[in-house]
Amino acid sequence: MADAVKATYTPQVLRGLGAFGGLFALPSGYREPVLVASTDGVGTKTVVAAALGQYGAIGRDLVNHCVNDILVQGAKPLFFLDYVASSKLEPQQVADVVTGAAAACREAGMALLGGETAEMPGVYQPGQLDVVGTIVGLVERERIVDGASVRPGDVLLAFPSGGLQTNGFSLARHLLPAAEWSKELEPGVSVGEALLAPHRSFLAAVAPLLDHSVVRAMAHITGGGMVGNLPRVLPDGLGARVERGSWPEPPIFALLAQRGNLAGSELFEVFNMGVGFVLIVAEEAVAQVRELVPAPLYAIGVVTEGAGVKVV
Amino acid sequence: MADAVKATYTPQVLRGLGAFGGLFALPSGYREPVLVASTDGVGTKTVVAAALGQYGAIGRDLVNHCVNDILVQGAKPLFFLDYVASSKLEPQQVADVVTGAAAACREAGMALLGGETAEMPGVYQPGQLDVVGTIVGLVERERIVDGASVRPGDVLLAFPSGGLQTNGFSLARHLLPAAEWSKELEPGVSVGEALLAPHRSFLAAVAPLLDHSVVRAMAHITGGGMVGNLPRVLPDGLGARVERGSWPEPPIFALLAQRGNLAGSELFEVFNMGVGFVLIVAEEAVAQVRELVPAPLYAIGVVTEGAGVKVV
Repeated sequence: MADAVKATYTPQVLRGLGAFGGLFALPSGYREPVLVASTDGVGTKTVVAAALGQYGAIGRDLVNHCVNDILVQGAKPLFFLDYVASSKLEPQQVADVVTGAAAACREAGMALLGGETAEMPGVYQPGQLDVVGTIVGLVERERIVDGASVRPGDVLLAFPSGGLQTNGFSLARHLLPAAEWSKELEPGVSVGEALLAPHRSFLAAVAPLLDHSVVRAMAHITGGGMVGNLPRVLPDGLGARVERGSWPEPPIFALLAQRGNLAGSELFEVFNMGVGFVLIVAEEAVAQVRELVPAPLYAIGVVTEGAGVKVV
Repeated sequence: MADAVKATYTPQVLRGLGAFGGLFALPSGYREPVLVASTDGVGTKTVVAAALGQYGAIGRDLVNHCVNDILVQGAKPLFFLDYVASSKLEPQQVADVVTGAAAACREAGMALLGGETAEMPGVYQPGQLDVVGTIVGLVERERIVDGASVRPGDVLLAFPSGGLQTNGFSLARHLLPAAEWSKELEPGVSVGEALLAPHRSFLAAVAPLLDHSVVRAMAHITGGGMVGNLPRVLPDGLGARVERGSWPEPPIFALLAQRGNLAGSELFEVFNMGVGFVLIVAEEAVAQVRELVPAPLYAIGVVTEGAGVKVV
C-alpha cells in the first residue's frame, strides 16, 4: 500500500506519508493561480462494494468523482487526501481502497498526499465502511470555466457514464436489494456488477479543451441528475432541453425504472441516466470540440430561455 | 448555517457554497509557496457529543485538530472543507456541526470553502455520525519547520491540553461507559463534560514564533500520545525524556488510569496526558520563546541521544 501511494508522488511532493501534514510545492508559471478544492464520498455504493468485496473500486470511484468535480471549473488536479473509517478496520480492505485510489491518482497525474484511517466502534454498522476524499487542483484565473458566457441555443455535449457513477445508491438499493445482485442483468453482467460500474474520470477527455477557452460551461452529473446539476452552471434565467434517446442508457436504469415504477421525470431527478459529464459549447464550436476530444460525445440538447431542465 | 459559512470567507474566496469545487485565489507575496494539507476526523468523540447533544463542539474540535496538524510544519491555514455523514441526517445536527466548524475557521482566519453531507442508510448506527475535515495551509519553503536542526539537550516546551483533545476515545469509552457520563468528576464538571473538553487550537499562541525561525520542531499530541508523536518530528537516533509532574494533568486522566488499572507507560502511549502541543527549542532560545508566546508554556523535558520517548 505504501508503495502504491509513493508511486503517485510528483516532484512537487516534499513530504508525504507519516508527516502531520503533506507538503506540496506549488507549481510555478501561473500568473494568478487559483486553487479549486472539493470533498466528497461515494455514498452507499460502499455497501455494494462491501458485499461484493470490491474495495479497490471504491477507492478508484472516490478519486474519479473528485477529479470530475474540479474539472467542471477548468482545474487540473494537484493532490488528493483520503479517509477510510469503519467500526473495525480490516487491513486488507483499507489497503485495497487506498491502492485503488492511488492507481486513479496516478492516472490523473496527481499525488496521494495524505490520508487518515479511523476505527470507530459503535459508529458504523458491522462490515460497513465510509470513504471520503478531498482533491485540490489548480487553474489560471483567466481560464476558470464558470458558465457566464452561456447563451440560449448553446449545445449540450455529453460524455456517457457506464452506470450510476456514485449517486442514487440509497434509492437503487431500495429498489434492488442485495438478494438481486447476483442475478444476471445482461449476458455476463450481474446486477451487482452493473451497480458497481466504474465512475469514470473525464480528465483525459476534457484536458485538451482547457487550453482553448472553447467550452462555456461544464457539469458533472452527480446527485440530483441532470435536473439538479445543469442549473448549477447555467446563468440565472437560462435552462436546458434534453432529448432522451440521443445517448445510450445503460440497462441498469431500465431495471430501476421498472422496479420503482418510476416516470422519466422521477428518474432524471435522481440518476444520471447514462450521462456522466456535460460540456456546454456554442453551436459554431461543436466541430472544433469534437476534433479536440479523444472520446465519444453525444449532442443531447440545447440551452433554452427560462430556468429549469426539461427532458423530452 | 449558510450565513456562518459565508462569514468565514476571506477576500481570496472566489466561489464557495453551491459550486462543484470551491475557488480560492492563492495569496501573493510568497517566493516558494508550499501547500500543507491534512485530513482528519475526531474519532469516537462523536459518540460522546451525540449523547450530550453537543454537535457544535465536534465541528470546532475537527477544525482545531486540523489547524494544529499543519501548524507543526509552520503553515498558516488557508481553507477548510468538512464532511458530515449519518444514516439519517438531522438538519439541526448538521447545522450545529457546520456552525461550530465555521466559528473555529473564522477564529483561525481561514475560509470554510466547501463541504459535503451524506445520508448513508445501513452504513452508520442509528443516532451516530462521522465528521471529517480537510485543511489546506501555506508556508514559505525556507520557513518549513521539519526538525532537522534538533540537537540533544534541546528543551521540550508544552502547551497544556484541556483533556483528551480528539484521541483515545475508544479506550476512554470502554473504561468510562455512557452510564458514567452524568457523574460529577470535579465540582461543577461531569465526566461527560470533561471528555468533551475542547480541542484547543494553538495557532494564536504559536503564530508569533513562525516569523522568527526560533523553533526547531513542533509536535501535535494526537493518537499515540507523546510516545507516538514526538518521534515523528525528531531526527533519526534522537529521543526525548519527559518529566511527569512538570505540567498539570487534567483529572480525567487519573480517573481513566484508575478504571483501567493502567500504568504510566500505558497511559502515555494512548492519551496526551495534559500535553496538547510541544515546541522543541534550543536551550538558549527558551527565554525568547517565552517572551514571544502569549500563553502558558511548561518545560517538560529534553531531547536525548538514542531513539524513543521515556517518561520519568
